[in-house]
Amino acid sequence: MNKILIINGPNLNLLHLRDKSQYGDLSLEEISNDCAEVAKQIGIDLTFIQSNIEGEIVEEIHKAIDNYHGIIINPAGYTHTSVAIRDALELFKGPKIELHLSNIFKRENFRHHSFISPVVDGIISGLQANGYTTAILAINNMIKT
Amino acid sequence: MNKILIINGPNLNLLHLRDKSQYGDLSLEEISNDCAEVAKQIGIDLTFIQSNIEGEIVEEIHKAIDNYHGIIINPAGYTHTSVAIRDALELFKGPKIELHLSNIFKRENFRHHSFISPVVDGIISGLQANGYTTAILAINNMIKT
Amino acid sequence: MNKILIINGPNLNLLHLRDKSQYGDLSLEEISNDCAEVAKQIGIDLTFIQSNIEGEIVEEIHKAIDNYHGIIINPAGYTHTSVAIRDALELFKGPKIELHLSNIFKRENFRHHSFISPVVDGIISGLQANGYTTAILAINNMIKT
Amino acid sequence: MNKILIINGPNLNLLHLRDKSQYGDLSLEEISNDCAEVAKQIGIDLTFIQSNIEGEIVEEIHKAIDNYHGIIINPAGYTHTSVAIRDALELFKGPKIELHLSNIFKRENFRHHSFISPVVDGIISGLQANGYTTAILAINNMIKT
Amino acid sequence: MNKILIINGPNLNLLHLRDKSQYGDLSLEEISNDCAEVAKQIGIDLTFIQSNIEGEIVEEIHKAIDNYHGIIINPAGYTHTSVAIRDALELFKGPKIELHLSNIFKRENFRHHSFISPVVDGIISGLQANGYTTAILAINNMIKT
Amino acid sequence: MNKILIINGPNLNLLHLRDKSQYGDLSLEEISNDCAEVAKQIGIDLTFIQSNIEGEIVEEIHKAIDNYHGIIINPAGYTHTSVAIRDALELFKGPKIELHLSNIFKRENFRHHSFISPVVDGIISGLQANGYTTAILAINNMIKT
Amino acid sequence: MNKILIINGPNLNLLHLRDKSQYGDLSLEEISNDCAEVAKQIGIDLTFIQSNIEGEIVEEIHKAIDNYHGIIINPAGYTHTSVAIRDALELFKGPKIELHLSNIFKRENFRHHSFISPVVDGIISGLQANGYTTAILAINNMIKT
Amino acid sequence: MNKILIINGPNLNLLHLRDKSQYGDLSLEEISNDCAEVAKQIGIDLTFIQSNIEGEIVEEIHKAIDNYHGIIINPAGYTHTSVAIRDALELFKGPKIELHLSNIFKRENFRHHSFISPVVDGIISGLQANGYTTAILAINNMIKT
Amino acid sequence: MNKILIINGPNLNLLHLRDKSQYGDLSLEEISNDCAEVAKQIGIDLTFIQSNIEGEIVEEIHKAIDNYHGIIINPAGYTHTSVAIRDALELFKGPKIELHLSNIFKRENFRHHSFISPVVDGIISGLQANGYTTAILAINNMIKT
Amino acid sequence: MNKILIINGPNLNLLHLRDKSQYGDLSLEEISNDCAEVAKQIGIDLTFIQSNIEGEIVEEIHKAIDNYHGIIINPAGYTHTSVAIRDALELFKGPKIELHLSNIFKRENFRHHSFISPVVDGIISGLQANGYTTAILAINNMIKT
Amino acid sequence: MNKILIINGPNLNLLHLRDKSQYGDLSLEEISNDCAEVAKQIGIDLTFIQSNIEGEIVEEIHKAIDNYHGIIINPAGYTHTSVAIRDALELFKGPKIELHLSNIFKRENFRHHSFISPVVDGIISGLQANGYTTAILAINNMIKT
Amino acid sequence: MNKILIINGPNLNLLHLRDKSQYGDLSLEEISNDCAEVAKQIGIDLTFIQSNIEGEIVEEIHKAIDNYHGIIINPAGYTHTSVAIRDALELFKGPKIELHLSNIFKRENFRHHSFISPVVDGIISGLQANGYTTAILAINNMIKT
Repeated sequence: MNKILIINGPNLNLLHLRDKSQYGDLSLEEISNDCAEVAKQIGIDLTFIQSNIEGEIVEEIHKAIDNYHGIIINPAGYTHTSVAIRDALELFKGPKIELHLSNIFKRENFRHHSFISPVVDGIISGLQANGYTTAILAINNMIKT
Repeated sequence: MNKILIINGPNLNLLHLRDKSQYGDLSLEEISNDCAEVAKQIGIDLTFIQSNIEGEIVEEIHKAIDNYHGIIINPAGYTHTSVAIRDALELFKGPKIELHLSNIFKRENFRHHSFISPVVDGIISGLQANGYTTAILAINNMIKT
Repeated sequence: MNKILIINGPNLNLLHLRDKSQYGDLSLEEISNDCAEVAKQIGIDLTFIQSNIEGEIVEEIHKAIDNYHGIIINPAGYTHTSVAIRDALELFKGPKIELHLSNIFKRENFRHHSFISPVVDGIISGLQANGYTTAILAINNMIKT
Repeated sequence: MNKILIINGPNLNLLHLRDKSQYGDLSLEEISNDCAEVAKQIGIDLTFIQSNIEGEIVEEIHKAIDNYHGIIINPAGYTHTSVAIRDALELFKGPKIELHLSNIFKRENFRHHSFISPVVDGIISGLQANGYTTAILAINNMIKT
Repeated sequence: MNKILIINGPNLNLLHLRDKSQYGDLSLEEISNDCAEVAKQIGIDLTFIQSNIEGEIVEEIHKAIDNYHGIIINPAGYTHTSVAIRDALELFKGPKIELHLSNIFKRENFRHHSFISPVVDGIISGLQANGYTTAILAINNMIKT
Repeated sequence: MNKILIINGPNLNLLHLRDKSQYGDLSLEEISNDCAEVAKQIGIDLTFIQSNIEGEIVEEIHKAIDNYHGIIINPAGYTHTSVAIRDALELFKGPKIELHLSNIFKRENFRHHSFISPVVDGIISGLQANGYTTAILAINNMIKT
Repeated sequence: MNKILIINGPNLNLLHLRDKSQYGDLSLEEISNDCAEVAKQIGIDLTFIQSNIEGEIVEEIHKAIDNYHGIIINPAGYTHTSVAIRDALELFKGPKIELHLSNIFKRENFRHHSFISPVVDGIISGLQANGYTTAILAINNMIKT
Repeated sequence: MNKILIINGPNLNLLHLRDKSQYGDLSLEEISNDCAEVAKQIGIDLTFIQSNIEGEIVEEIHKAIDNYHGIIINPAGYTHTSVAIRDALELFKGPKIELHLSNIFKRENFRHHSFISPVVDGIISGLQANGYTTAILAINNMIKT
Repeated sequence: MNKILIINGPNLNLLHLRDKSQYGDLSLEEISNDCAEVAKQIGIDLTFIQSNIEGEIVEEIHKAIDNYHGIIINPAGYTHTSVAIRDALELFKGPKIELHLSNIFKRENFRHHSFISPVVDGIISGLQANGYTTAILAINNMIKT
Repeated sequence: MNKILIINGPNLNLLHLRDKSQYGDLSLEEISNDCAEVAKQIGIDLTFIQSNIEGEIVEEIHKAIDNYHGIIINPAGYTHTSVAIRDALELFKGPKIELHLSNIFKRENFRHHSFISPVVDGIISGLQANGYTTAILAINNMIKT
Repeated sequence: MNKILIINGPNLNLLHLRDKSQYGDLSLEEISNDCAEVAKQIGIDLTFIQSNIEGEIVEEIHKAIDNYHGIIINPAGYTHTSVAIRDALELFKGPKIELHLSNIFKRENFRHHSFISPVVDGIISGLQANGYTTAILAINNMIKT
Repeated sequence: MNKILIINGPNLNLLHLRDKSQYGDLSLEEISNDCAEVAKQIGIDLTFIQSNIEGEIVEEIHKAIDNYHGIIINPAGYTHTSVAIRDALELFKGPKIELHLSNIFKRENFRHHSFISPVVDGIISGLQANGYTTAILAINNMIKT
């Protein structure tokens, strides 16, 4: 049974308080539930975590190396500032997808640059909560091939 | 029945000749067939076209305004150079997804900037042929909500 | 009798669908009619065309070389991306005016640079439909002197 | 009766000494007379002033707020360096046109940037003395609508 | 008795006409009265002036050198363009505070750079009219220590 | 009774060891005591904390959302590098002041850019320890209005 | 018998009207005749075409893939703006030479950057009409080795 | 008898208060006296003025056009910000020397760019008071040849 | 007996998994053992730590202030993004060496800039594991002199 | 009999040791022999030199002024750094060709800029050893016309 | 008796061949004679040399350290490219003047930056041959004070 | 017996005259003696040279190719300006270390970029004279493995 880890970065625990026109209507808990349901349907073992601390995210990726087949990461604010998370992701050899709820190219200039994009396989941006389930289906396909 | 238009930009007609490590194994015809199958499964009316001429793509988008509910566009080389296609897409009010077979952030610097991204809803990049079917499912959800 | 060519670039055929606060209330057809009326009043022979294809605009300028005394061009999206149109305009030796319906300096940064401006005589921007008739009067004066 | 103020910036008092290929043949006094004639023809009340001092131009704009319906400004050298004039123009709510005798995009790079353009309605550049009468007609139309 | 000079730059005489969401509700006269009241409470001698002319502001700073213990300056539009005012402030050796009613970092990019900031002791930005009285208290403390 | 949170970023716990010409003479503990005294005088409930960990600061801001009326933050080194703290501050809807002991515009170039400034109401920089009490008075006024 | 395709970009059909100090004295037809003569001398099969439309040039390159041993391209105005032509050239695996009549480094800054140069084998610039026959000899050598 | 005008820009009236390691020991009055003495020795008619107002300097240059054979200008802070003074100097056809007491290339970056340098004949920088007499001798030679 | 602290930044705990052509063959544990041996030989007291959390590294540097004579730091991913670690290092007054296993100038552009370099005494880069023992010898010499 | 000088810059004496995929298979001596043969065939007097010293190359160009009809220069590493060689070439009035064995636009960014290109007539890049004989033929044609 | 060294950089030996509108009419020998005459008049010992080799100029400056009281250097093409000459000049502690015959700010952009200016006392540019004698007088004054 | 070449660039012959806070107390001769002693201790054959001429350094590297096992180079001023030395170093296949006495990242911006760093194995900067002996030990280890 394939194991997938979804990592959510800083401030996503308060997703329900953020600008709904950018991020959509769902709370992170509701998204987590939607993901769990899809995981069950397609028969994968899914873990869904959130952290506000850069170094903790680095360590979660380290732990994933021998324990997961794929990683989906929404690095949030660390997208634009973290070389440490980038370097950690390079250590993980399975398929990796970078995910953003909002379309980061409609926002401030500094959000247009991602340290993460060059070390993942695919990027999904702007599909709001729908992006999570889309990413699970896509990474599952990537693991199979 | 929802109608979706998929537009493929320059050189994608020769996809089978391009670097397979970047673009994957399938030809554009095979991708088109895969898309048609998914469209049938989820009950949408799908049109799949390709053009090498910037102005023709502009005009296909114009024609879509009253005839389609959503547009998926892989602008290929025009991603980085066409304000005309950007302006045309702004005229289309339904959901729009920008699609790239390869992860454009792993490639030359000039491919990191897209004139298209700020005027679409979502962006999918690097999922190879899988990105097309992923995009169809996602845009279908967007049209429904 | 002086002959003037007005060339309209991509997406202007759908002017009536664009943002009215930027572009004003008139459709391209209505603008064309207004221009025809002014032309009649001041006794010039006016041709009013539109094309979405960069290369076609290049060729229209070529044809104008021996057939028109002045060119008014609204290059729309090609303003910011077309060296080919710039090079064509350099071949035309009569008076040339670059025209924009909206004030391009109130919009996105990439619209502040024009490849066309350094090869025309005058630039009119932000006067909406009024800019067309203003340009006709101005170019008529330039041809006379 | 509509009242329009035309403001001319630094060095324009010596227009007759400047490079004729850039600025045309007329002195500022001759331009002023031409403008007066057009004003009379179309029935508006026109004031035509010149100043070399940035702060004086700021104050002329202040005085115009309750006394004029439209402003035409040729900011000359202050175009590229004055935030103070820009801020003053933002206080004036009627129609505003920025005017340049020469085509500033054919000249030195530093002349391609205008602090004024984003706060006016329209810009006319490169039509030489003809630009003044063109601007009067255009702003008169803008006041009427 | 400590003497403090408050200098207000261009367009601040028309503060009551500017965008209230940026600048707050008070006119410059009302701010001046508030400042006078605070000055009385804490026992300082306060002068409050405004000028639209860069060179006049330079000269007011010159005159302050032997006559005031501290300067509070809201350079307004000259913040971003005046080396002359910067050089004048360097000649004044007492405490200096740069003041902005609005938060200049929420506004256009060109307002993010100040020629003045590197030559003053402190900067207060975005506190609207409240910033003036805050600055008086702060500079009074600085003079005392 | 209004509740205000003061957050101090990395290295401020060792303030007494830093360059006194930049930061002034007081230790963080002495500043904290001064703030407590002012708080008592004006009748507000003040909390004063310090953390060296970016993610912890994010979480302190989260906790403040339902528990404080205003935030004063001296982000220290994270001023220039943290999008995560910026995003957290955007979630807090009450008044916010960014505070720096030193005048950051007199220091290295990289300190001239703040990710925090565009999401706060006011900025106070260079007033040394005096800035803290100034900020408390100012934010108290902002909460009242 | 080796087959070589020479592609000429926009405005080159009117070469005889362009600035002779930059482009030399010959018309495109005369250059074509010179090339044909050289081709006959060295025994190769030469095709000489011109197009003003970016997408058409893309398609001519596509057709060359199975039909020619080498491509010489003078992309003219598309040199600096076309990723689509660059991508098409990458699909052609035989020798490729980029050709400019004028020395593009003596001209405007925007002409110093070529999207084409990194995907061809050799570049010849500034030899005027002589560059065409030089390129034919050079590419013939490259095909032989 | 040759007439030379020396113009001194903002803050130079307080030269004796500025940093002596940059500007040397002399006051502007002492420099003026030294210049008068040299003028007498070499038999020229010298006028020595100072102004803090950009527009006044513009007007002094205007007046010089028919009344002086050469201009020496120390534009001080306006060196880096005034297009108006540059444009005025272009109207003066006799020899022109730009003068700086300090070596502006040893100072802040923004002082390395001069709007004035491209429109004068010669530049003398860093020779302190000595630069004035040096400039007088040099411009006198230029007028003679 | 001299005390030296070696701090290793994020992802170095998994050094054995990283690209051996960049980082060499040894694990961090093996490097730690090599360092211990050298420390014994030259008679110094060495501590060797690793952390993935920026704020923890800040705090380890704080603790070193009164307890160590020198610091060797391999900041890994935080080299390019941490002002907080830079500020902490400025508080430590003994000798400091920045260390990189790989030659960072052979890698991506963003790795060419270090926030740390301007606040340390020496930098050693590209000597792989050998760099650690080299740094110990060098810092020991620096402490002695 | 026409005289042509070929100048080879630094490191080209060791051409046989450089990367063959960039520079081709031939040593500089073999290229020199090929050139001599072509020279004999077309009846020109050819000198072929190499130097590693910038100033020596300057002096060789000086000597060529009265002794050669054309110069072909492969400036190698000095292409990107030598204004002195550029200035020397400007003194030589006959035809000049800049030559590179490799396609410099496929290599590091700093190799894309040439100080030499704007002062020569033509540029040939990427044709490897073939470029030398091509250049001889081309410059011979240029001398004749 | 004061000893002054004048160093002339690359290509100045052929001054008589360079563009007279930039450099004036005199050859380097004539300038040298003029300098010798001035030296005799004011009683100094003057040496006048020229070299095309960067390293030789470095060594001439080295030799001047114990043998001359002042250096005047016209670094010509090395102005913009030589850190080695800059570093050598920093070793010479007497007065130093940088000299350019032409006004380098009227020429190409790359000539606007000098590595030399920040390490000399004064700069004289654009006074043509007159600049040499001007510089001798000025440096003589500097040595005396 | 391993042979190592140490190359010192321009101005290092006068090391004893340079700023001791940057470069330390030793003359180049003393450093050379220290290096010789270390070489004797570890049993290697060491050559220590200095040159002020870029092209001579290129040639010394050429001669090293068949005669030395490793190169240590302190390129001094040529670090930032020499592509020729970089290209020469690429021809040498043994281990290479770039060495700077001072910490170049504490100095002027232009010293932060090295053309040499990307073609050497290791870089040592800021260890003053100590860096030489450190580099000898390190390169000796590299040759052995």
